[in-house]
Amino acid sequence: MKFVTALLCLMLWAGSEVSARPPCNYPPTQWCSSYEIAAACQVEHQCLEFKPKRNADPVVISLFYESLCGACRNFLVLQLFPTWLMLNDIMNVTLIPYGNAMERNESGKWVFTCQHGEQECTGNMIETCVMEKLQDPFRYFPVIFCMESASDVIAAAQLCLKIYEPKVPWAEIENCVNGDLGNKLMHRNAELTDALRPPHEYVPWILVNGKHTDQLEAQAVESLFNLVCNTYTGTKPTACAKAEGKNSFPKCMI
Amino acid sequence: MKFVTALLCLMLWAGSEVSARPPCNYPPTQWCSSYEIAAACQVEHQCLEFKPKRNADPVVISLFYESLCGACRNFLVLQLFPTWLMLNDIMNVTLIPYGNAMERNESGKWVFTCQHGEQECTGNMIETCVMEKLQDPFRYFPVIFCMESASDVIAAAQLCLKIYEPKVPWAEIENCVNGDLGNKLMHRNAELTDALRPPHEYVPWILVNGKHTDQLEAQAVESLFNLVCNTYTGTKPTACAKAEGKNSFPKCMI
Repeated sequence: MKFVTALLCLMLWAGSEVSARPPCNYPPTQWCSSYEIAAACQVEHQCLEFKPKRNADPVVISLFYESLCGACRNFLVLQLFPTWLMLNDIMNVTLIPYGNAMERNESGKWVFTCQHGEQECTGNMIETCVMEKLQDPFRYFPVIFCMESASDVIAAAQLCLKIYEPKVPWAEIENCVNGDLGNKLMHRNAELTDALRPPHEYVPWILVNGKHTDQLEAQAVESLFNLVCNTYTGTKPTACAKAEGKNSFPKCMI
Repeated sequence: MKFVTALLCLMLWAGSEVSARPPCNYPPTQWCSSYEIAAACQVEHQCLEFKPKRNADPVVISLFYESLCGACRNFLVLQLFPTWLMLNDIMNVTLIPYGNAMERNESGKWVFTCQHGEQECTGNMIETCVMEKLQDPFRYFPVIFCMESASDVIAAAQLCLKIYEPKVPWAEIENCVNGDLGNKLMHRNAELTDALRPPHEYVPWILVNGKHTDQLEAQAVESLFNLVCNTYTGTKPTACAKAEGKNSFPKCMI
């Protein structure tokens, strides 16, 4: 409901009397994500009023991936992110960038080797640090999508952060990437990946509510939107059903 | 099928023997969009083999909008772009940024006034010029999504172009924005908007296969994915159905 409600949150914006109001400086994905942002965008009343009414656990999609694996990029960009944009009220996404990488310990520090070379290790690390720094998927998932959908994943990172999180200095990400924190976080990704049962045989390696089968993987890759709608056991949100088109909707009036 | 096939296109990437190959420098959204790009990414055989097999006209979604209208941004970012990412094999999108703007002719040049101020006129013009310059929706829609989903639509424009189209100099867009070409193109947007029957009463103003009703609009805003699947008269693509999960899918093997 979070995003459908974000739409509804905009009703204040409708009507010409608000046309002189400056737009709020937050991405639409975040408008109903915190009280502070809703307040800054003057939609707090609407965001509260239309709070998510989820009546079952969200569907959890976990993605074990590598930043430069083509099949991973395709799944993340063309299935996972767009599905999440539309269904985040009934789904949670967990991203673990490591995949087929390997690690060894050298004098107490972890050294990583990645399937698609050093650049991939850098990409995995940047994405891990972006998640650590931003914490909230409504903040970090657009940045990661931006990187993975770009012409050059690594070169895009700094630009993507500037677009979605202009107040977060790139240096904070860099410090994490090059420091002990990043090293520790990537080791954690390695542990999570190695703990998979059954162990992963390829990436993208997708879990649906913690479970992986080749069939679930294929369903996710082919039609994640329907898989999430069908797996969710609560009342289906409007996005999952044929909409009747009877509800009011936000507008900018003439 | 274009993107589902893009997934299939990646089968060449699977297998450790290709792990040393440098990644191709094109966004995943473009991998099967032209022969040149498929060749550069070494997936031309797969892209040809799994060509779209659409057996009915695509569903055409036309969006009349304004670059800074909150309700427009929400629809474009949270419904239209994600649906298009997953269903572009059965849908075409037409974007007309103008909306409730007005124009007057001063000594042969058009002067525009926008609902949310001068910045909005700039945003409309940049997006119009990006479409003119890039032509192909697989190239320009990610740039426009990037702008509309950003913290600051206008400030993001140059960064978004750099992320998705690093070879296109920003100066080319600027020249269009400030020159006769942009002025002419925006006048065309005004003409297209003024020619709407029934005339638009608000934005986002959505047409489904050229037709607007309040009910269609509400269905699009609430559940565009299902609206497109249900409107398409040909054989439904996998993304529209409950996937059986029996097909092979692209992977990066260990």
